[in-house]
Amino acid sequence: MDRLKNTSQNRSFGGWHKQYTHASKVLGCDMRFAIYLPPQAATQSVPVFYWLSGLTCTDENFMQKAGAHRMAAELGIALVAPDTSPRGEGVANDDAYDLGQGAGFYLNATQAPWAKHYQMEDYILKELPDLIESAFPVTDKRAISGHSMGGHGALTLALKNPERFTSVSAFSPIVNPINVPWGEKAFTAYLGDNRETWKAYDSCELIAKAKVHLPMLIDQGEGDNFLAEQLKPESLVAAAKEAGYPLELRMQEGYDHSYYFIASFIDEHLKFHQPFLMAD
Amino acid sequence: MDRLKNTSQNRSFGGWHKQYTHASKVLGCDMRFAIYLPPQAATQSVPVFYWLSGLTCTDENFMQKAGAHRMAAELGIALVAPDTSPRGEGVANDDAYDLGQGAGFYLNATQAPWAKHYQMEDYILKELPDLIESAFPVTDKRAISGHSMGGHGALTLALKNPERFTSVSAFSPIVNPINVPWGEKAFTAYLGDNRETWKAYDSCELIAKAKVHLPMLIDQGEGDNFLAEQLKPESLVAAAKEAGYPLELRMQEGYDHSYYFIASFIDEHLKFHQPFLMAD
Repeated sequence: MDRLKNTSQNRSFGGWHKQYTHASKVLGCDMRFAIYLPPQAATQSVPVFYWLSGLTCTDENFMQKAGAHRMAAELGIALVAPDTSPRGEGVANDDAYDLGQGAGFYLNATQAPWAKHYQMEDYILKELPDLIESAFPVTDKRAISGHSMGGHGALTLALKNPERFTSVSAFSPIVNPINVPWGEKAFTAYLGDNRETWKAYDSCELIAKAKVHLPMLIDQGEGDNFLAEQLKPESLVAAAKEAGYPLELRMQEGYDHSYYFIASFIDEHLKFHQPFLMAD
Repeated sequence: MDRLKNTSQNRSFGGWHKQYTHASKVLGCDMRFAIYLPPQAATQSVPVFYWLSGLTCTDENFMQKAGAHRMAAELGIALVAPDTSPRGEGVANDDAYDLGQGAGFYLNATQAPWAKHYQMEDYILKELPDLIESAFPVTDKRAISGHSMGGHGALTLALKNPERFTSVSAFSPIVNPINVPWGEKAFTAYLGDNRETWKAYDSCELIAKAKVHLPMLIDQGEGDNFLAEQLKPESLVAAAKEAGYPLELRMQEGYDHSYYFIASFIDEHLKFHQPFLMAD
């Protein structure tokens, strides 16, 4: 455990919320994450729900605002919330909220100055789970979910690596980044001008080629300010239909892009993942 | 409704979380508050749970972090979270976190420069409920609760005005402010050097004189850093026993002073208040 430094802990719903920092080899900087260990983890290994947050977030937004501990404690599932990018003084950044620190887009950057640290795909897919599974009482069963940029991260990682996850879900995901302003800006910076390379990080492209079908659930608020310009869930539904990929998209009347939306439906997402996480 | 300005709204658990500002006559400044209206409020009047926050908080801490909307929606209870003091450029302040803006202590100040605006007792007791009950679909049934400084506020307001509330609860309240550092500092500033005047805002003093006994529930974390020096719940238990006032204090093993503690037990507080709020 000497790789991990515990920075806070709070008892919550009979379990523990804890924050850690560690030196990431993949990202070349110190990283922070939070874990919620349900009461069951005191006596047995529990499966893990990974949550990828959206633009500007850290490990704290989900843990403080989603109200997920209650159901995680009831179901016996650990929650892990990583940060949304590499961080620190030596790490490339941009003044905008949608590029650089806090906006890693869960990809491996190939372009200067980003490529040196922005390798979030490898970090989330391998380095972080390896660390979690070596240091905490958890199984190797992993569900993945996320919000907005993090919904994009969850969907793309699961579509490309179905053997790593039992199931995937998302709130308000950016499903077609290669065709929306957030994605075009970030992918140009991180991946360069060749749009062909962008397709490796676009859920609509990836779902068309997916050979393994994971259980997939998406919730989208109809009152979300980013719905029409940035999120476009109908593009993923069309691509999934074309590919014969089973996907449940639920349009939720009146809900916006905030954590009040996530809190309202996080219980259903945890219950959705639970049978797959508990299966042998 | 022209006294009220709506500044945000989010759909949450089938109801609505909304923030407002209004010009407070009692406080002489613009004030903000948040209200959660459960789904039932669309077709009927619902009772109200008032939440008083602790030092440094605004209306947002409880609404974002307590995870209370779910149970409020299930039980059909509105939640109201006021700010913790008068605010603004013309309002007296102090650099410390435990005096001035964000630290009103739910009392009516008598000393300069505080007395001009710091009249939080009158605001919480009368002006705010009058506004809420004229502008929203709510009944005049009111429960009151709060955390730390807000637990002090809830207990003192309920002990002094039992006819205004159906029931009272608190998390980690400052029950004996006249004998602890937070209270001594604030009361000296707001109320002056005559300690006799302080007793009107001390739960241990008030419970000894209370003629009407309200249902009262207190939760206190045993891992709370402020327990021994600032909170001292055993003082209130002793005063209640002496007075024959029924009081349930629950010491919760391992829990600290954070909103993770509040989130873990807020459902039980709402269920505690519910039968009293719903009684004819």
